[in-house]
Amino acid sequence: VDDLAHAEDLVVGTLHRLGEHEVSTEEIVAFARQWDPQPFHVDAEAARSGAFGELIGSGLHSMGILQRLTVEGVLRHWAVVAGRRIGDIELTAPLTGGLVVTGTVEVLRVELQPERGRGLVVTRGRLVGGGRTLLEARFETYVRMR
Amino acid sequence: VDDLAHAEDLVVGTLHRLGEHEVSTEEIVAFARQWDPQPFHVDAEAARSGAFGELIGSGLHSMGILQRLTVEGVLRHWAVVAGRRIGDIELTAPLTGGLVVTGTVEVLRVELQPERGRGLVVTRGRLVGGGRTLLEARFETYVRMR
Repeated sequence: VDDLAHAEDLVVGTLHRLGEHEVSTEEIVAFARQWDPQPFHVDAEAARSGAFGELIGSGLHSMGILQRLTVEGVLRHWAVVAGRRIGDIELTAPLTGGLVVTGTVEVLRVELQPERGRGLVVTRGRLVGGGRTLLEARFETYVRMR
Repeated sequence: VDDLAHAEDLVVGTLHRLGEHEVSTEEIVAFARQWDPQPFHVDAEAARSGAFGELIGSGLHSMGILQRLTVEGVLRHWAVVAGRRIGDIELTAPLTGGLVVTGTVEVLRVELQPERGRGLVVTRGRLVGGGRTLLEARFETYVRMR
């Protein structure tokens, strides 16, 4: 009845391609108003005179999009216990309205901890859009063993 | 007219105490439905049989709360250009409904880049609640020079 992948089932080197999400300016502003209300995320006027010349999304918004695509494409098939750590989040290009983004998740390492009944799974997530990498990060997640 | 703190004004070692936020179960579920729809974040029934025995918030939700408190308490007084990198987000305790959280931001390093007219400012953010640290992370942010 439990057809989820467990820690022993995960194969280092596997690359998962994620689905797509179209980012709207409305979504950028709504996210930032709630979680990151800096002028260059919420105020189009202020953003025009800023470093990017237009409204850019919060880095956490990019993280949220990557996470949702990762849950839909990967984590909902795994017996996840919880996330433990997110390392080295590089924000390499801004999220902007109208961009269609997608991404990949690669399994980098699986460290079985049989005495805890779980494995620590290290993955690299990458969000891309408009031909550029927007964000890369390393995720450490506990996944149950069988 | 511009009374914001610029990179030269920031003092290494300064510790900023942030405001408070009360987390509700409704907020946990609403955030997770949109950005991290894993069962232990959105389904109270599934969460009861999970590792934590109750609904826990997404790690990104904890990040969002820390970021909003940081913007309100610190970043809105700084001439921020953009975030560059977030290093090593440690999720050390779960976000749960009813918790009142607060935090600190400490200035760890200021690296002036006069040729770019900006400084790279490294801070450590910490979110605490219920007597525990929920999350720590290192932020690298570009701040304009005068």
